Amino acid sequence: MPRPLITLTTDFGESSPYVAQMKGAILSVNRDVELVDVTHGIQPQCIRHGAIVLADSWRCFPPETIHLVVVDPGVGTDRALVCAKCGEHQFVLPDNGLLSAIMQTERITSIFALTNSRYHRRDGSNTFHGRDIMGPVAAHLSLGVEPDELGRPHPELAQLDLPQPKVEAGRLVGEVILIDSFGNLITNIDQSLVDAACQGLPEVWFAERLTQGPCTTYAAAAAGTVVSLFGSSRRLEIAVVDGNAAKVLSASTGDEVVLRW
Amino acid sequence: MPRPLITLTTDFGESSPYVAQMKGAILSVNRDVELVDVTHGIQPQCIRHGAIVLADSWRCFPPETIHLVVVDPGVGTDRALVCAKCGEHQFVLPDNGLLSAIMQTERITSIFALTNSRYHRRDGSNTFHGRDIMGPVAAHLSLGVEPDELGRPHPELAQLDLPQPKVEAGRLVGEVILIDSFGNLITNIDQSLVDAACQGLPEVWFAERLTQGPCTTYAAAAAGTVVSLFGSSRRLEIAVVDGNAAKVLSASTGDEVVLRW
Amino acid sequence: MPRPLITLTTDFGESSPYVAQMKGAILSVNRDVELVDVTHGIQPQCIRHGAIVLADSWRCFPPETIHLVVVDPGVGTDRALVCAKCGEHQFVLPDNGLLSAIMQTERITSIFALTNSRYHRRDGSNTFHGRDIMGPVAAHLSLGVEPDELGRPHPELAQLDLPQPKVEAGRLVGEVILIDSFGNLITNIDQSLVDAACQGLPEVWFAERLTQGPCTTYAAAAAGTVVSLFGSSRRLEIAVVDGNAAKVLSASTGDEVVLRW
Repeated sequence: MPRPLITLTTDFGESSPYVAQMKGAILSVNRDVELVDVTHGIQPQCIRHGAIVLADSWRCFPPETIHLVVVDPGVGTDRALVCAKCGEHQFVLPDNGLLSAIMQTERITSIFALTNSRYHRRDGSNTFHGRDIMGPVAAHLSLGVEPDELGRPHPELAQLDLPQPKVEAGRLVGEVILIDSFGNLITNIDQSLVDAACQGLPEVWFAERLTQGPCTTYAAAAAGTVVSLFGSSRRLEIAVVDGNAAKVLSASTGDEVVLRW
Repeated sequence: MPRPLITLTTDFGESSPYVAQMKGAILSVNRDVELVDVTHGIQPQCIRHGAIVLADSWRCFPPETIHLVVVDPGVGTDRALVCAKCGEHQFVLPDNGLLSAIMQTERITSIFALTNSRYHRRDGSNTFHGRDIMGPVAAHLSLGVEPDELGRPHPELAQLDLPQPKVEAGRLVGEVILIDSFGNLITNIDQSLVDAACQGLPEVWFAERLTQGPCTTYAAAAAGTVVSLFGSSRRLEIAVVDGNAAKVLSASTGDEVVLRW
Repeated sequence: MPRPLITLTTDFGESSPYVAQMKGAILSVNRDVELVDVTHGIQPQCIRHGAIVLADSWRCFPPETIHLVVVDPGVGTDRALVCAKCGEHQFVLPDNGLLSAIMQTERITSIFALTNSRYHRRDGSNTFHGRDIMGPVAAHLSLGVEPDELGRPHPELAQLDLPQPKVEAGRLVGEVILIDSFGNLITNIDQSLVDAACQGLPEVWFAERLTQGPCTTYAAAAAGTVVSLFGSSRRLEIAVVDGNAAKVLSASTGDEVVLRW
């Protein structure tokens, strides 16, 4: 039997001891668990950022993985904490929209609110439910506790209004939703959408600029060239060969990307 | 039997391969150990920062945890390296004050200097005792080596002069001792001190500004409001709802926080 | 039997979920593996930086370690991916020069190209071979797959032209090849080279400035003093006592360091 696997996604910051405090709380419940950091670099309090990163990462993990996601600006208020099932994966998180991007394509099959304090840390605080409730609950799940023991069935999950690409006659308008550590501009335009909307390769425009592509690799053109390509999450990206597109193009999330054909 | 647990707290920086070199040295002694990073973002050479972070984190880990703490500006000089016991936890660190914040409330029950070179890395350097002495010693402890085998009993530990809050007639003056990754200003004012000093809720002032609070949650007021609350370590904090207090208030560690009642 | 050990060195950035996606791909092949991050802070697309960090770190890990190294600006082009053996360690990486610094002193004893798609992730992308090819291959190696099952023998590895120190009459000229998280300037001047070239202690000059040293510790002089010493990788370093040499001296990689005797 392999050790159960818990991933961690938070906005605590990479250097934050809060991450370690949460891990300590998990290990105090189950010492025999594998902890994998997805990222702690979600922009502080930015649920949308968390939702998109989560949607791009969860599927890389094996079945039975438990994903603990703590981007929780409403900690201590009446927002619910939940355990939600999606395929063979389980998610432990606040009900504030963090599953929105996953729910665009996947079905959530059961949701329970974490109301049973038996699975919480004793003498918990009001300001750190990652350490005091969600972490311990994820650890109990990894020990085999069934979701319906964690609390009451929860009716439905909050959903963010995520930006959707618009398909028009001969063009498709999307936007940058994420900038990765290389400075690549990741858009909300999925390869399947482009395949369905247009025959052949479209032109990809960013800020009145025609990019070279869609290419098949980042190194498809000379250094410094602005290229477009479908990246590893099947999303259209704008990149600069051997460079940082976000810096070169002064780009931000929300910037428009236009496909023409 | 669960795998033994070693936590790591250093000022090496999150990206630093020095952390990995230390982990490699540990794993070269004991492959069957669980390594958990507390943080590698202690300010370079800042023993006080390390002492405070350590005090806020160690208790979240289960009994028998070994805490390896390497903030060691005096590496290679005659400062001692020690193994110290506190409750059921063990600490391996330089004797330079890193346990000062814990010692404000806890008793250290045994201290040994790491003088027995049998438990050090062979051909070690003079400039990286985390990798060459403290890491291997922590690994040997995790294998069951007794602290008194590590070297001579060590008389007592160096202590930093940490800033203490002052209780005066109708007021209490503390200071910011830590700024977290959210920009929250963490003070040296513990909830128990406030409970003992004043009946009811005091006013909390920062830089001639009356904060709203003490509140019970970060989301207790409108976005942008400067609030105060007792955080997850029971310390008084100044925060900005959905914002970064350190930036909004141009705050630094050492800044004064005043309670009035 | 201890769990097999895989280290990870990339230019993905510390906060990047790409690291987690790669770990998820590894754990999808072998759940019973120990993953240790060396660093994800290699400068984007900088093979030389990766090569030097790798050379300073690999030896700290125990025999049988598998080192996965993904600094891969040519992803998707015709550069080969390989598994290379060095001593009792194995490396999985693109053939783009990443082993150059190790090859200055060590012999690579076998090289296979990762051409057997049986060990790759199904439906992989063209832009993330860390997740889709190299990660899964490292995981299969950790399960006991033999390197010659991974693909064809590969003739020889690409090598970078790394800067070499020059020994002249009465002097030795090297350069800064790395700046660590403390701001220490790490040079390409190895202690063994200095021992061979000059009797006694040389003068160490940086930017027309005579440093104090070579010292034996970072704390050998008053705070603020510019010192030189042989660091934990046996390379000559320029440091500032209790300070940041890179900032104080406005230094960059490539800057010249001169020894005179």
